[in-house]
Amino acid sequence: MSELVDAAGEFLLARSAVDDDRFLRDFASMSAFGATPAGGLEREAATPPHGAVRRWLAAWLEDRGFTVCRDRIGNMFGLVELNPDAPYVVVGSHTDSQPRGGRFDGAYGVLAAAHAVSRVCRHYRDTSAVPAVNLAVVDWFNEEGSRFKPSMMGSAVLTGKLDLDVALDTADTSGTTVRTALAAIGELGQLDVFDDAELPSAYVEIHIEQGRILDKQGIDIGLVTSTWAANKYEIAVVGAQAHTGATDMADRQDALYAAAKAVVAVRELADRYPEGRIHTSCGQLTVLPNSPVVVAREVRMHVDLRSPSSHILAEADAHLQQQFAEIAVTANVKFETRHAHVWKANFYHQSGVDLAQAAVRDLGFSSREIRTRAGHDSTNMKDIVPSIMLFVPSVDGISHAEQEFTEDRDLLNGVDLVAEILFRLTRGHALGGDHLDWNSLT
Amino acid sequence: MSELVDAAGEFLLARSAVDDDRFLRDFASMSAFGATPAGGLEREAATPPHGAVRRWLAAWLEDRGFTVCRDRIGNMFGLVELNPDAPYVVVGSHTDSQPRGGRFDGAYGVLAAAHAVSRVCRHYRDTSAVPAVNLAVVDWFNEEGSRFKPSMMGSAVLTGKLDLDVALDTADTSGTTVRTALAAIGELGQLDVFDDAELPSAYVEIHIEQGRILDKQGIDIGLVTSTWAANKYEIAVVGAQAHTGATDMADRQDALYAAAKAVVAVRELADRYPEGRIHTSCGQLTVLPNSPVVVAREVRMHVDLRSPSSHILAEADAHLQQQFAEIAVTANVKFETRHAHVWKANFYHQSGVDLAQAAVRDLGFSSREIRTRAGHDSTNMKDIVPSIMLFVPSVDGISHAEQEFTEDRDLLNGVDLVAEILFRLTRGHALGGDHLDWNSLT
Repeated sequence: MSELVDAAGEFLLARSAVDDDRFLRDFASMSAFGATPAGGLEREAATPPHGAVRRWLAAWLEDRGFTVCRDRIGNMFGLVELNPDAPYVVVGSHTDSQPRGGRFDGAYGVLAAAHAVSRVCRHYRDTSAVPAVNLAVVDWFNEEGSRFKPSMMGSAVLTGKLDLDVALDTADTSGTTVRTALAAIGELGQLDVFDDAELPSAYVEIHIEQGRILDKQGIDIGLVTSTWAANKYEIAVVGAQAHTGATDMADRQDALYAAAKAVVAVRELADRYPEGRIHTSCGQLTVLPNSPVVVAREVRMHVDLRSPSSHILAEADAHLQQQFAEIAVTANVKFETRHAHVWKANFYHQSGVDLAQAAVRDLGFSSREIRTRAGHDSTNMKDIVPSIMLFVPSVDGISHAEQEFTEDRDLLNGVDLVAEILFRLTRGHALGGDHLDWNSLT
Repeated sequence: MSELVDAAGEFLLARSAVDDDRFLRDFASMSAFGATPAGGLEREAATPPHGAVRRWLAAWLEDRGFTVCRDRIGNMFGLVELNPDAPYVVVGSHTDSQPRGGRFDGAYGVLAAAHAVSRVCRHYRDTSAVPAVNLAVVDWFNEEGSRFKPSMMGSAVLTGKLDLDVALDTADTSGTTVRTALAAIGELGQLDVFDDAELPSAYVEIHIEQGRILDKQGIDIGLVTSTWAANKYEIAVVGAQAHTGATDMADRQDALYAAAKAVVAVRELADRYPEGRIHTSCGQLTVLPNSPVVVAREVRMHVDLRSPSSHILAEADAHLQQQFAEIAVTANVKFETRHAHVWKANFYHQSGVDLAQAAVRDLGFSSREIRTRAGHDSTNMKDIVPSIMLFVPSVDGISHAEQEFTEDRDLLNGVDLVAEILFRLTRGHALGGDHLDWNSLT
């Protein structure tokens, strides 16, 4: 196999139509685990279909010489040691899905990572060159957070933002803990794979955009420069259970009435700002006891506020809290915040964006800088190691839905780009620790 | 045992402190099946605790010489034939409860019926008189409707308002049908016990008020003259699933936002009328897929409108439908009515109220006429046979809640009254078929 050199004298990794075919075939195989009739996935964290796709992935990696291991929060790693004295670069995403989610969200990034590492390793088998780093594919545990909250759990534990035992003791709505669920699918490891004493030197993740900017503008690759700030709350609205027919309207302490007013307030909060300044939602709401002829005694709801500006987020949040206080009086109920998960708007690394930008240019792709509104495991990882986050287009921006779709061409472009970035890191490109800042954003 | 005669020469049934003690002890035993720590019940239709209370009840009845049988929709009857040529009078209520419901709702009426019939039978064992009717205790299947909809299922099938197979094929939210659930607890009968060819001659039911009128006014007994009209709807709000963070606010078809606006509209519809003219509620609401970071694709909700006036109900309903249409446009979703269960305001029998009124007076109780806002199995039965519906007080009007409470004295008064009414029916008091009407209401 010969090395390719671009006009500027940079080496480019070999690619082929055979590689492309294999990737698409593997992606189809992977998408069968938890597949829904409408082309999506039902593969929540640590459910049987999630266990099945992990066994498939582990076999794929072991067949190609990776050493597969799981850490104590169920992150799965596929390690390739190329240079015993060098640090690891970690690359990956997650194989868990939302209920009736799409088959690209997360899973694409894991398979792209596996193929890209495999391609880099193949290159080194044919040369005497010594790579500057080792490579590890990661499948983070519970990025989605639909079954076990919070989201991005595996990377939060690895980066020290979430206590391991708190995470393992987290229960789903049926009372099953993360610990029990991971053990049941055989994915609960006994050791740390990476820890403070032995951090990776960089992290790379590719993901579908889950928005329509790239698709609308016909651009191949998004180079992620920053994340939106987010405030996520679990709220309990506490009223009093009563008979719907027999109880006077004035005597009711209807938790669902109050929760409904809160959902409306959350949605209409966004209308106070121009589009794109704040996103608000309530996607989860549980009514107790949820009987047709019983006034609800309690409603548990999840409120999600996101903004590119921490300032706007704080202002909107304060306004919402005031509205909740007024609703509590109107409906004669209490609002209790049971849990909060908050992160500020912050930035990826300049050196990572620069490296990705150079690779994009040399491969002949188009790109633009972009902010991510969704959280990703790189949101956690970028706070401890230089990180690169890449997007490929999502048709119509649809995500967390079975209709989620990305064109084959875009999938394959992404694999090439990840391979090329990893290749450059193995050839000694080091990433600096400087985060971007507001002034650098286009 | 001697017969008692009041001032007007009417016979009164014997009562004793021993009877009272036995009733309270039996009520405590019965309340243990499905008991919650807070003093309520979790005994939804055809669940294991419901099966257990039925086995207890069947043994109680058989021990006292009743013939116990179940019909094809799982109504349980305890028959006592006193005169082979006479028709039956049926008396009872239901032993199923709401989730975290109270221990008096329904169960009290069944046990009061059993004790009252037992007391009347004891009287006839000591005389040579031939009763004019036979007596049957009934425990109707699925009055509550929390697990299987609609409510008042057993009496709806017996009265021909609901098709037997439709009822048996009704599934709960986990997909278990009435047929399967009844068979599992051994309560699915093979035959009709009562049908069009052999109707009872009267129906009697006693129940806690589930309102605060008797309690507030210090009155012993409510004589029910009429029911409120009710419109109950199962509605599906259909939007489109999407990522809460990544999807532009303007692009959302958020089913939960629309459903929340609908819940608020339902509640605030009641504020358009004076208290007591209309009750509205939404007690059941289910979000799909119900994940914190997913815009809901569908919400299923149960809307319940009730009024003493069919006219007000129709007017309010039309206003609400108009609001739903406007919400559908605002939120870019569809409202689909999946099921409707509707009944008009209507009336009990003049002869029944008169008989109960006379018995109340002779027993020295206070009483008032009252309308029921809740539905009861007598709502169905009164349309085919002369029916008497009685209330005892509920402390603070609390019902469908664990705090539901009725004083022992009121429970015992009710048993005495039912026994006395049954006694008078066995002595040849016949009930006429004339319903009350608007002009007769106080």
